[in-house]
Amino acid sequence: MAITLYDLAGADPARRFSPYCWRIRLALAHKGLDVDARPWRFTDKQAIAFSGQGLVPVIVDGERVVHDSWTIARYLEATYPGRPSLFGDAVAPIRFLTSWTDRVLQPAIGRLIIADLPAVIDEADRAYFRDSREKRFGMTLEAVSADREQRLPAFRQSLEPLRAVLADGPWLGGSAANYADYAVFGAFQWARCASPFRLLDGDDPILAWHKRVRGLFGGLADTVPAFD
Amino acid sequence: MAITLYDLAGADPARRFSPYCWRIRLALAHKGLDVDARPWRFTDKQAIAFSGQGLVPVIVDGERVVHDSWTIARYLEATYPGRPSLFGDAVAPIRFLTSWTDRVLQPAIGRLIIADLPAVIDEADRAYFRDSREKRFGMTLEAVSADREQRLPAFRQSLEPLRAVLADGPWLGGSAANYADYAVFGAFQWARCASPFRLLDGDDPILAWHKRVRGLFGGLADTVPAFD
Repeated sequence: MAITLYDLAGADPARRFSPYCWRIRLALAHKGLDVDARPWRFTDKQAIAFSGQGLVPVIVDGERVVHDSWTIARYLEATYPGRPSLFGDAVAPIRFLTSWTDRVLQPAIGRLIIADLPAVIDEADRAYFRDSREKRFGMTLEAVSADREQRLPAFRQSLEPLRAVLADGPWLGGSAANYADYAVFGAFQWARCASPFRLLDGDDPILAWHKRVRGLFGGLADTVPAFD
Repeated sequence: MAITLYDLAGADPARRFSPYCWRIRLALAHKGLDVDARPWRFTDKQAIAFSGQGLVPVIVDGERVVHDSWTIARYLEATYPGRPSLFGDAVAPIRFLTSWTDRVLQPAIGRLIIADLPAVIDEADRAYFRDSREKRFGMTLEAVSADREQRLPAFRQSLEPLRAVLADGPWLGGSAANYADYAVFGAFQWARCASPFRLLDGDDPILAWHKRVRGLFGGLADTVPAFD
């Protein structure tokens, strides 16, 4: 039986743009598990109330309900140990990379693209999204992203630790892609699916890596509604 | 025959404070290799000219000369594969953590403590150190560190990805300490050996972890000239 994933969608139900949900889409594919990825909107709190909280990703695997992307990834690794490992013996340093993505990379990307989000999210979500985010930032979404061209060089510079890894090999996880790749991939896929703003130079090795990840699992993350 | 390590020292030759040299001291101990850690000063360029460059750490292992801490760590792993592994199969995500330490953590610590360095470095190095660093920063060392109390909360906040790992277990490398720990350890040991400024709250789990690393290898990094 397929695992159900509640997956953030835009006005176009095929446009999936949550960075955390992308991690889990790829983790499920890595494990070779079938998925029913159901479109979910920010304001569909009732649809996932059974998980005891209001954020996606949430998975339902038979009788088991798991939320929070890191908890889901650890659950999949523990529950399906005979399938390709998501972490190898590197779970601790991958936890660091994932937490850096949560706390540094994604907030930085968010400030660059957030003014573009209202145009892609579902109409029913727009007021909720704008109100909650503008309250968090203390300014309009447009004001948050207004100086993004000026902030772009420092943002690109902040990615040097990723380039250091990619100078040594094709994947952040080592000799094969693993959860290290999927965690960081989700951040850039979020931007790709939700904003026309170009985060990376055309010759950036991070862009080449992102395209490699898009090529995995039959192009699972490639042929989707996106701005390229 | 012991491996020779050229190791940055202060006015007190027992005060070793290079973050990069500490990584290698611990990596050598992890591999169970004997070391002759020779005190070296910033201006002793002639003493390591045989390495083809002017920075420590440099190691001499029989006929082989290796410099650059990451290159040395990879060399030790490749040359002594039968001894405890420095990376497990996690070399790529440990590369990320190490590069983040180089590019984000150490520069942040440097700005907080650099005004204290002249008091501990060798008299022969003081003019070189001040001139080269003040040129790099475009201001006096005292000006760089002047607002350190104000910058401390944001610095401590930036360490959250380390705390995320330490919430799951005692080591950054996983079930045992490895190069992930030694890379980050060096940064905090640099501060501990060179400055009285307190980077961490007394109840910070990073401080407890730092003390655990100091306890390894018979207290190799514990009972040294330091500000605590």
